[in-house]
Amino acid sequence: MSELGQQLRVDSVRSSAAANSGHPTSSMSAADLMAVLMEKHLRLDYQNPEDPNNDHVIFSKGHASPLYYAMLKAAGAITDEELLTFRRFGSKLEGHPVPIIPWVDVATGSLGQGLPIAVGEALAGKKLDRLPYRVWCLCGDSEMAEGSMWEAFEHAAFAGLDNLTAIIDVNRLGQTRETMVGWDLDRYVKRAEAFGWHAIAIDGHDDDAIDAAYAEARETAGTPTVIVARTKKGKGVKAVEDLPGKHGKPLDDAEAAIEELGGERDLTVEVAKPEGGRAPHRFDVPGGELPTWELGEEVATREAYGKSITAVGAMHGDVVALDGEVSNSTHSEMFREAHEERYFEMFIAEQQMVAAAVGMQVRGWKPFASTFAAFFTRAYDFIRMAAISRADLRLSGSHAGVSIGEDGPSQMALEDFAAFRAVHGSCVLHPSDANQCAQLIEAMADRKGISYLRTLRGKTQVRTPADEAVTIGGSRIAHEGDDVAIVACGIVVDQAVAAAEQLEGEGVSARVIDAYSIKPLDQEAIRTAARECGAIVTVEDHWPEGGLGDAVLDALADAEERPPVTKLAVREMPTSGKPDELLHAAAIDAEAIAGAARQVAKAGSPA
Amino acid sequence: MSELGQQLRVDSVRSSAAANSGHPTSSMSAADLMAVLMEKHLRLDYQNPEDPNNDHVIFSKGHASPLYYAMLKAAGAITDEELLTFRRFGSKLEGHPVPIIPWVDVATGSLGQGLPIAVGEALAGKKLDRLPYRVWCLCGDSEMAEGSMWEAFEHAAFAGLDNLTAIIDVNRLGQTRETMVGWDLDRYVKRAEAFGWHAIAIDGHDDDAIDAAYAEARETAGTPTVIVARTKKGKGVKAVEDLPGKHGKPLDDAEAAIEELGGERDLTVEVAKPEGGRAPHRFDVPGGELPTWELGEEVATREAYGKSITAVGAMHGDVVALDGEVSNSTHSEMFREAHEERYFEMFIAEQQMVAAAVGMQVRGWKPFASTFAAFFTRAYDFIRMAAISRADLRLSGSHAGVSIGEDGPSQMALEDFAAFRAVHGSCVLHPSDANQCAQLIEAMADRKGISYLRTLRGKTQVRTPADEAVTIGGSRIAHEGDDVAIVACGIVVDQAVAAAEQLEGEGVSARVIDAYSIKPLDQEAIRTAARECGAIVTVEDHWPEGGLGDAVLDALADAEERPPVTKLAVREMPTSGKPDELLHAAAIDAEAIAGAARQVAKAGSPA
Repeated sequence: MSELGQQLRVDSVRSSAAANSGHPTSSMSAADLMAVLMEKHLRLDYQNPEDPNNDHVIFSKGHASPLYYAMLKAAGAITDEELLTFRRFGSKLEGHPVPIIPWVDVATGSLGQGLPIAVGEALAGKKLDRLPYRVWCLCGDSEMAEGSMWEAFEHAAFAGLDNLTAIIDVNRLGQTRETMVGWDLDRYVKRAEAFGWHAIAIDGHDDDAIDAAYAEARETAGTPTVIVARTKKGKGVKAVEDLPGKHGKPLDDAEAAIEELGGERDLTVEVAKPEGGRAPHRFDVPGGELPTWELGEEVATREAYGKSITAVGAMHGDVVALDGEVSNSTHSEMFREAHEERYFEMFIAEQQMVAAAVGMQVRGWKPFASTFAAFFTRAYDFIRMAAISRADLRLSGSHAGVSIGEDGPSQMALEDFAAFRAVHGSCVLHPSDANQCAQLIEAMADRKGISYLRTLRGKTQVRTPADEAVTIGGSRIAHEGDDVAIVACGIVVDQAVAAAEQLEGEGVSARVIDAYSIKPLDQEAIRTAARECGAIVTVEDHWPEGGLGDAVLDALADAEERPPVTKLAVREMPTSGKPDELLHAAAIDAEAIAGAARQVAKAGSPA
Repeated sequence: MSELGQQLRVDSVRSSAAANSGHPTSSMSAADLMAVLMEKHLRLDYQNPEDPNNDHVIFSKGHASPLYYAMLKAAGAITDEELLTFRRFGSKLEGHPVPIIPWVDVATGSLGQGLPIAVGEALAGKKLDRLPYRVWCLCGDSEMAEGSMWEAFEHAAFAGLDNLTAIIDVNRLGQTRETMVGWDLDRYVKRAEAFGWHAIAIDGHDDDAIDAAYAEARETAGTPTVIVARTKKGKGVKAVEDLPGKHGKPLDDAEAAIEELGGERDLTVEVAKPEGGRAPHRFDVPGGELPTWELGEEVATREAYGKSITAVGAMHGDVVALDGEVSNSTHSEMFREAHEERYFEMFIAEQQMVAAAVGMQVRGWKPFASTFAAFFTRAYDFIRMAAISRADLRLSGSHAGVSIGEDGPSQMALEDFAAFRAVHGSCVLHPSDANQCAQLIEAMADRKGISYLRTLRGKTQVRTPADEAVTIGGSRIAHEGDDVAIVACGIVVDQAVAAAEQLEGEGVSARVIDAYSIKPLDQEAIRTAARECGAIVTVEDHWPEGGLGDAVLDALADAEERPPVTKLAVREMPTSGKPDELLHAAAIDAEAIAGAARQVAKAGSPA
């Protein structure tokens, strides 16, 4: 327990006392671990946080934010005054770290996410930037129960990430009780070794042992290292040390605690700067153009996805692709074949896949990550947190909706629009044909925030001319008419056009709007249709909640013209069957669309 | 490779050929493992699938459904004719198993879920039913990359589930390539041992070795056993055996394959029936009544949650509670204190928590599972799949929305309504006071399907008389008026009432509808308000997408009266701060509500 370690403790107690909330005891257990890191092993220019050669520090146990901010003060990055704004409205020192301050890479606070993201940063360092920076990740022992941590352990070893060091702060006590493992460090060591890591068990309050462990980690080649540190929660203050019931609250008597810790200090550490000033690796690219398809061709948009990201990858060296071991289904395999060094196979571990993408974008890379649309639900917490991380992510889900057919409902995304619409700052795209898909992918590459694109298993007809502009927030009219508007997306656009053609023969003129951009929706096109057509039918291969239909209703919520809207969507649990059988059973095929449109067109028109 | 094993292979090839899709090669690798299980170790009365003493068989690798259905035929549970309806529209033999047939406990097909659910069934067997049935879970090796599998490994060992046997079918080949571990069985063994399991590595095509391993598993006391079986994908047919590129497709030449496997067979296995006929354990309960609160009391609904589930647990011995190591925050600790034997601490492993609840409800138990609302996003895929499993689950998320205050956005559920509304057959509840909470919890206990209830960190005023009926699908008027309707839920009901009281002084009469049931929404109350009030403002502590506002719009989509709707919701990324500061910053406080209501009441009224 060095002077610096004690200062970090004191400042954790002080900021939490000032906020009257926070997690000082969870900070105090790891103070020595972080003090030795700062003094002897970290290579981070706090005055120049954008230096690409900087090491990265991630607090996977984000609730230990008092410690994190105390480190910033000790490094001279923030003042003591700012430290004491912790958790106040308007302060950048939020309850859990968020990257509105430049030293924080990503938001943490949902346990089990920091280490998988650290794996992404370490992958970026080794395979993309090709710089010798290290990633140091402080983990709590409670979060070792999260499966995502073991996805990270497996992938980091598989990828040989010796630039990654995990530090487990084994203070034994969770929020309400002892963890399943307690202080049995050997169990963590055995698990880590079984997953292919180098593991070192130490007393986390013995500065020499900590120093030696970091040195050993830095010298270990070929595998990542985990330091399993036995610590005491609330270390240094008898009123809380190693006691249950002291989680997530300020100390009852902060003043006495500060005195017991030796009083306030104002040490500033000269954290070592990274050597070199080397520039990150850049990939030479041949350039090229987006693929295009002829009108009338039948192409699956997942195939267009593969071709388009491959083309975008040829134009932009900072584009990378990841997949969850279904690259021959999503067609991201085309990218792998063309740009092997920028393709990352993440296996059946969707949380680690999204986390790796988050980590890579921290370093400025532009990841496109793909799997079956249904399986992004597995990573929903990571996507939610990525929005808080202000991450720029491009995600694509294939094989969505009942139209996939025989595989059955476990493989059918029917909630992806709802889930992704409810991600802050997201866009939600669902092209109905290959030309739309290509242009939307190019737009995603340049977009900030989280972009989601659903592709289709089956083929659809190319209706969009290759030279027609397709934009995020746009739409297109796939069939002209003004007796009724049918708003559709994806697989059901072909069905809606077939319905419109059938209605035409009956003297009903239906406008089909292909709403390939569900968020942001083309409000102007919807409001125009509301004015001109008088009645609206929405159709989607999705549950009725939270998808295209709700987006259309939202676009009209306070519009001057608010015609009746009939929502067609999947309302019963689907089964296996042929795509056509399932579209029919769900009443989202041409017949059902024509029926619904006929009814409201009649009701709404004076004839 | 026994005759039965070969029959299971042949039938897997046949059903996939008839369907022209499916996963025969992933079935063939595990055929011997399942043949020996059926012939020698399984205790399952296929003619009486509801026998509580039956063993359970879960295919965590749900895509091996051809093998599962071939087993059903071999057990005499289905005919050969039905077997050949595999994957057809109208058949109960879907692409991945679903419990529309009585032998299937739960839907699988999203990898990494079967084993965590098996843990739930084994917990039910050991701690609730107290019957000696065993749970046999066939796992794929690809899915061992899913973190959820390691949550299951950890919890099963922690709980000493020696009634659980996992069988890993290590056929080495995933969908596109070799797994990260390949045939290195020892790595699986070491990992399993490090997580506290007994592990046995065998040749998965050696019937004697398989038999011995099962016998050893059955004899192993105190810990679960995993059988790590080296197998060959497509075993028995040279055209596919151990070859890449053969995943998820029927064999090119099924006839030749069947011949190579020795031709069709029609063996029926006399699977052993369970001994005994013992009745499941039942918990004696004292009875009691729901708690009630006085009007005007200030109570947090999370506290009401704790008291109410405890009361429901005292009335019903089949109610159980699970928590993700935040029981002093959700207040499920009250249930633990009152009904310790029916409380399950699931630690920081939300996927395993939901999966355990799914497993317990298979056996008729009624689980209430709680954590912070934000962290159910971690288990969203499990919840999606639970709907396909036709599971009856009660989930409660606390600490939602910006109103939690200082902890910041990582802990603020702002997408839970959207996510849970888009779960098939779900209900989504958000009581604004303690009396509502209690009655809704009692209703949830009896409800089929997936029920979700959001509780609040902070206190709200009790406005609902204890003897007023509160129902799923209901609502209440918290303030009378007919110039404008304000539809609110949860924390913002107090804000809406304050706004209405303020507006009253200005001569604007506002009706406040407390929409505590978001799905199903009280459509009648909303449509009545639309007719009588002429303008609607919705308010929610949630993102604008997919929540209460969208539900209100949906209720009015094709109504005769469709007044303008103004949606107030959280539109910018929140920060830390005091609850009031954050409600104000998000423009969902009384001031913002009054402002929005004033504007539309003026616009809408003739005055």
